[in-house]
Amino acid sequence: MAVGEYQLPEMLAISGVKLGCANARIKPTEQDDVTVISLPEGSTVAAVFTKNAFCAAPVTIAKGHLAQTTPKYLLINTGNANAGTGEQGFKAALDTVNALAKLTDVNANQILPFSTGVIGEPLPTEKIINALAPAINDANAQGWQRAATAILTTDTRPKGVSREVVIADKVLRVTGICKGSGMIHPNMATMLAYVAIEAKASKAVLQELLNQANEASFNSITVDGDTSTNDAALLIANGNAEVDLDALNSHDFELVQAVITETFIELAQLIIKDGEGASKFVEVNVVGGADYTECKQVAFTVAHSPLVKTALFASDANWGRILAAVGRAGLHDLDVNKVQLFLDDVLIADNGGRADSYTEEQGAAVMTQEAITITVSLNRGDAQAKVWTCDFSHDYVSINADYRS
Amino acid sequence: MAVGEYQLPEMLAISGVKLGCANARIKPTEQDDVTVISLPEGSTVAAVFTKNAFCAAPVTIAKGHLAQTTPKYLLINTGNANAGTGEQGFKAALDTVNALAKLTDVNANQILPFSTGVIGEPLPTEKIINALAPAINDANAQGWQRAATAILTTDTRPKGVSREVVIADKVLRVTGICKGSGMIHPNMATMLAYVAIEAKASKAVLQELLNQANEASFNSITVDGDTSTNDAALLIANGNAEVDLDALNSHDFELVQAVITETFIELAQLIIKDGEGASKFVEVNVVGGADYTECKQVAFTVAHSPLVKTALFASDANWGRILAAVGRAGLHDLDVNKVQLFLDDVLIADNGGRADSYTEEQGAAVMTQEAITITVSLNRGDAQAKVWTCDFSHDYVSINADYRS
Repeated sequence: MAVGEYQLPEMLAISGVKLGCANARIKPTEQDDVTVISLPEGSTVAAVFTKNAFCAAPVTIAKGHLAQTTPKYLLINTGNANAGTGEQGFKAALDTVNALAKLTDVNANQILPFSTGVIGEPLPTEKIINALAPAINDANAQGWQRAATAILTTDTRPKGVSREVVIADKVLRVTGICKGSGMIHPNMATMLAYVAIEAKASKAVLQELLNQANEASFNSITVDGDTSTNDAALLIANGNAEVDLDALNSHDFELVQAVITETFIELAQLIIKDGEGASKFVEVNVVGGADYTECKQVAFTVAHSPLVKTALFASDANWGRILAAVGRAGLHDLDVNKVQLFLDDVLIADNGGRADSYTEEQGAAVMTQEAITITVSLNRGDAQAKVWTCDFSHDYVSINADYRS
Repeated sequence: MAVGEYQLPEMLAISGVKLGCANARIKPTEQDDVTVISLPEGSTVAAVFTKNAFCAAPVTIAKGHLAQTTPKYLLINTGNANAGTGEQGFKAALDTVNALAKLTDVNANQILPFSTGVIGEPLPTEKIINALAPAINDANAQGWQRAATAILTTDTRPKGVSREVVIADKVLRVTGICKGSGMIHPNMATMLAYVAIEAKASKAVLQELLNQANEASFNSITVDGDTSTNDAALLIANGNAEVDLDALNSHDFELVQAVITETFIELAQLIIKDGEGASKFVEVNVVGGADYTECKQVAFTVAHSPLVKTALFASDANWGRILAAVGRAGLHDLDVNKVQLFLDDVLIADNGGRADSYTEEQGAAVMTQEAITITVSLNRGDAQAKVWTCDFSHDYVSINADYRS
C-alpha cells in the first residue's frame, strides 16, 4: 500500500556521475541488488549518517573513509544490512571495498560502502564481489532510474527527484534518489539518499547545505519513531565550475539552499507516502512557537502518537487525542487556552476545548482526504516547524508482525 | 483481550474508609458510574497527577483543594472525562463538588473530584448530582470490590490488590484499586488509582512513599506512550495510630516503602495485562547502567518501539529491532560491544551481534510464552530500571481506529 500515484520523473544526468547496477542474487529475485556509483575528478561529497549507537559496519567504514579523502566510488548493496554482525561484519565490508578498489585502481579509502536489508546475517561477500565487474561495466550517466530501483528493499516503488533551476544566470541541475519505507524496516535498515548537483563546491559548503536540507527533510519525517542502524544521506557536487557555490553571494546561496532543501523534502515525503501500511499522508505543522526546537518537539509528539495515527487511519477527527499529544510534549509553561488546532483550514479546537464553530461534518470532510494537514498554533511566538508522517494501519502491524514468519 | 487469568482478591477493609457506588446512567449501561469514598477523621492524603498541560478540569480542582486542606470525600465518575471542556468544564466539576459538600456537610474544598471517560463532551452534572445520595447511602468499608468495577471505562476487568504484612510487630494493611488499559484510551482518560493503608502518617511522609512507589510503578509502564489528561494516583492513610509511619526507624520505614511500592507495581502490572489488545506481558529490565535515569531511558525506548512490540505480538525473537532501539536511546558514549541482550535467561546478542551460543529455537521457545522478560545489560555501571509493557496487536489498531465509528 502507498499513498497516491507516483511515477519516477525523467532523471537528468549530472556530468561524470555514473551509476551501474547488477544482480548479485543476495535476494532470490530478478531485481538488481548491487549499485556502483562513480564520481568524476573534482567532485566533493558531504554526508550525514545514522546516530544509532548500533550503527552498521559499512556506516563506520564510510564515515572513516570520508574523513580521510575524497570518495571516487560509492558501493551500495540491498538484501543485507551488515548490521549486528560484529567484527566479521567489518571484515566483510572491507573485503567488498578492497575488491572494488582493485578493479577500479583506486585506494580503498576512496570508496564508501552502504548496505541495507536484513540485520544480523553475514554479508554474502563473494556474491557481491562477483557482481562488481558487471556493475562497473553498466555504469553510465543515465543510470539514475535503474539505480533508484536497485537500492530498494521492501519499498513498493522507486523514488527520485530531478530538476533544473536558474540561479545567477546559471543552470543548477539537481538529481537524487532515495529508498526507505519505515524508519527501520522489519529487520531492514532503512533510509539511503544520494543527491548530486551539477556544480562545484568545497566540502564545507556542501556539508552546510546538506545539514540544513537534512534537518528539514529526513530529520522531519517519521513512520514509527524508530531510527535505523544504516541510514545515510549524501550530497555530491560534481565539480562543474560553471556554478561555483563558494563564489555565490549570500542571496544566491540562499536560493541554492532552498532548491537543495526542497529536493530533500520531496524525497523525504516520497518515503512517507510509501510508508509501511500507509494510507494517508499527514503534515503536522506547528506554528507560533517560541523557537524551532519546541515546535519540532510538539510536531513529533503528535506525529509519533499511535492514538493520533490510528485515528487518522480510521478517518476520525479525534481532536482530543491531538490536544492530549500537544499537552504531553513537554512544554510545561504552555498556556493551553491559547492553543488552536486546525485540520486543513478548519478550526477544531481553541480555548482548551472544541471550537464553537466546529461541526463533526467539517472534520469528517477533511479526514476522508488522502493528504491531511494538522496545524497546531501555540500562539506564543513566531517559530514554526513541519513534520511529515503517515497513518498507523492494520497493514503496519501485519507487515511488521509477519515479516519473518 | 487481556493477558492471563485474573480474579480480584478478597479486599480487606481499611477502618473508616467507606466506598459507595451508584448508577447515574452517564453511560447507557447497568454498570455503576459514580463512586463516593469517605475518609475518616485523622486521615491524610497524598496524590500525584498527570503532567499533561491539557489536564482535565477535575485534576486542576483536585490539586487546588488538596493544597488547601485535608480531603474528607473523593468523588469519581466514569463515562465522561470532563477534559477539553474549557471554562464550562470547571463550572460543571464544581457544581458536582458543591452538591456533595451540601449533602455531607463539609466544605467544598474537602472534596476531590476525578473524572474518566470521553473527552470533549459536557459533564452531565444533573445525572451525577442525582446519584450522590444513593452512593453515600451505599458507602461501607466493604465497598472496595464494587468500587473497583464502578471506576472502570473500557477495562475488561476490575483491578485490585490487598495485603497485610507485619512490620515492627504491627500489622500493616494495604488495599487499593485502579483502572486503565491504555495510557490514553480511545477518547478516554486513563489511569486512576486509590490505595489506602491502615496507618497514621503525616502528609509529607505519605507523599514521599507515594512518589517513590509511583516512579517504580505507574511511571514505569507504557501501553502506547501516550499520557492522559486525567491520570491520578492517591495514597491514603486512615490515621490509625497503631502503625505510625512518622515514628518508624529507617529500617522499618524502608520495609513499609517496599510494601507500598510492591502494591503499586502490582496494580500497574494489572493495567498492562489489561492493555488494549494486549496478548503478551513484557518486562524490560535494563541493568548495568551508569545511573537509573539512563537505564529507564533505554527501557522505555525499547518498550515504546512499535517494531519491538509488533515482533512480540508475532512471537518473533527479532533481536535486531531490540538492539536498534537500545542504540537510538540517546546514550551516545555507549560501547555497543559491551551490551548483552537476554530473552528470559537466553543470551541472544553480545559483541555487537548475535551471540555464538544462540539458536533461533531458544528464542522461539521464550517468545511463545505469555510473559516475557527482555534484559539489556549495558555493562557500564550498577544501576538498573524496570519497565513493563505489552505487545502491539491488530486488536490495538482495531480498538483505537474503530472506537468512534
